[in-house]
Amino acid sequence: MTTSTQIQLAARPAGWPTPADFATVQVEYGDLEPGQVRVANEFISVDPYMRGRMSDARSYAPPYALGATMTGGAIGRVVESTSADLPVGAVVLHQFGWRDVVQEDAARFRAVPELPGVPLSLYLGVLGMTGLTAYVGLTAIAGLKAGDTVFVSGAAGAVGTAAGQIARLLGAGRVIGSAGSDDKVALLTGKYGYDAAFNYKSAPVRRQLHTAAPGGVDVFFDNVGGDHLQAALSVMNDGGRVALCGAIAGYNATEKTPGPYNMANLITRGLTLKGFTVGNYQGHAPEFNRLMTGWFTEGKIAYDETVVDGIEHAVDAFLSMMHGGNTGKMVVRI
Amino acid sequence: MTTSTQIQLAARPAGWPTPADFATVQVEYGDLEPGQVRVANEFISVDPYMRGRMSDARSYAPPYALGATMTGGAIGRVVESTSADLPVGAVVLHQFGWRDVVQEDAARFRAVPELPGVPLSLYLGVLGMTGLTAYVGLTAIAGLKAGDTVFVSGAAGAVGTAAGQIARLLGAGRVIGSAGSDDKVALLTGKYGYDAAFNYKSAPVRRQLHTAAPGGVDVFFDNVGGDHLQAALSVMNDGGRVALCGAIAGYNATEKTPGPYNMANLITRGLTLKGFTVGNYQGHAPEFNRLMTGWFTEGKIAYDETVVDGIEHAVDAFLSMMHGGNTGKMVVRI
Repeated sequence: MTTSTQIQLAARPAGWPTPADFATVQVEYGDLEPGQVRVANEFISVDPYMRGRMSDARSYAPPYALGATMTGGAIGRVVESTSADLPVGAVVLHQFGWRDVVQEDAARFRAVPELPGVPLSLYLGVLGMTGLTAYVGLTAIAGLKAGDTVFVSGAAGAVGTAAGQIARLLGAGRVIGSAGSDDKVALLTGKYGYDAAFNYKSAPVRRQLHTAAPGGVDVFFDNVGGDHLQAALSVMNDGGRVALCGAIAGYNATEKTPGPYNMANLITRGLTLKGFTVGNYQGHAPEFNRLMTGWFTEGKIAYDETVVDGIEHAVDAFLSMMHGGNTGKMVVRI
Repeated sequence: MTTSTQIQLAARPAGWPTPADFATVQVEYGDLEPGQVRVANEFISVDPYMRGRMSDARSYAPPYALGATMTGGAIGRVVESTSADLPVGAVVLHQFGWRDVVQEDAARFRAVPELPGVPLSLYLGVLGMTGLTAYVGLTAIAGLKAGDTVFVSGAAGAVGTAAGQIARLLGAGRVIGSAGSDDKVALLTGKYGYDAAFNYKSAPVRRQLHTAAPGGVDVFFDNVGGDHLQAALSVMNDGGRVALCGAIAGYNATEKTPGPYNMANLITRGLTLKGFTVGNYQGHAPEFNRLMTGWFTEGKIAYDETVVDGIEHAVDAFLSMMHGGNTGKMVVRI
């Protein structure tokens, strides 16, 4: 018998989620059945997309069920096994989410190599789904070409820090980012090699973007939506491409927010807006893993993590991330 | 010496254009220089995109100059020639627009065959730029696949009547159209083979579109924008593609109109919005001409034209078309 502490969705949030929308439960696991493993999580991921799944609006991904444990990316270590494929000690990625211990069929876990000097949490971030999201958005969605000017909104977040660096490594010309504090802006131009960055809370996005992108923008990787999208449409060059990855500006809105006032620019400038969720682009993972492992090994990838300790603080970590309290990837250490 | 009657843009319209925004002038042409032709126009084209060029907002196409003759598609016959390439009697397409007679270098005209039983005006419509616009939007922009459900807004207009038929001929499953009168709706399901059609003035677009497309929409060919675009985003299937061809709903707006309230659907459903102007896709013309000539010869293409007589009524024709007074292509007969 093992006791697992798990966080469940208790109510569908209206607007900003609150701790009352979640419940902490203790689940008792019995002995392993044949082919099962017991995994002690080391890190769990909290991501903006989870807000969408807390609502019951139609989406690619089904909504979270009420009274069920929050699923999502997590990484842990096998502590007991009846599977020859996954021995005790193996490091595994999985989607069982917000719990300290999970017990399931071995086939539902994916072993990853434990590399010297590489924190396991990076498999939830720049080496994992987060990095893949940035890569897919820039390549398969936005068709990044060498020399393109790239603008990344919410650039100090998990996906944004990866996107700016990947864009540069794939040959982008000028790379511009927005973030919600002066400290983050300094990080973008310092640590992450952005050519220009601005604080979207200190002046209108449109004006700052015009200044930062005097030659216009060819590729916009959007994590924010709202006024960021409208501003970008006003500076996009002819034939520009927008990868719509997230729209965190509207995730907790209780009233419907209008789209950009300048949608007609799509026609007159021949622009493309393409939304995506990385789950539909897993076929790009081998190519991404090969490239990213190479870059990472060569020391070309910087990263930040914001780590919150304790499964009991998973909800706090999620809410802090939604408010922009993170730099780079937000993870919960178990 | 020949006198040419020409319509010029006299002022940039604010909101709906009025006759006062235009001026009629008489231009005297001298004798032909070597290599020139004099062409007597038979039909001139009035098109929604012209409204955009009357404003000085940035666009692919430069704005019309004030005090210059309105340019645009026209077809006429060579009445005098000093060019071996274009003898007297040749039928030629050109872009010199709103005038009864034009005199220019032969290289600026394109000869087209005069086919028995085919009105020359069709070269301005379904056999010309209008048909190409429909074809490019469905194929290069929206990536139409066999079996797709296709929705065309403003389907009784010049591009719309062509788009519905081309979609069907390219293998679309269900084809749905909207139009601004019950007569036009009857024409869509009768003459043009639409599976379903509705009058967008008689009830909210969203409700009618949901009813007409119970299985959702895969390809949306948008000529209207506004509530049509918002409604379509609510019924698009996962992976759906929107070709943004026109947004006539907003062309004469004096206040900025917001974009759709459901832009987040682009992300959750993996939708693509792509705007285009046919001028950038002329490379598709040979393929289109081959296909369309075949379909037309086989009697598979229906068409309507709304013909207004007299260059002095070009402005009236343009305004009537902007108000939906046309069925199929609106042309001015000289």
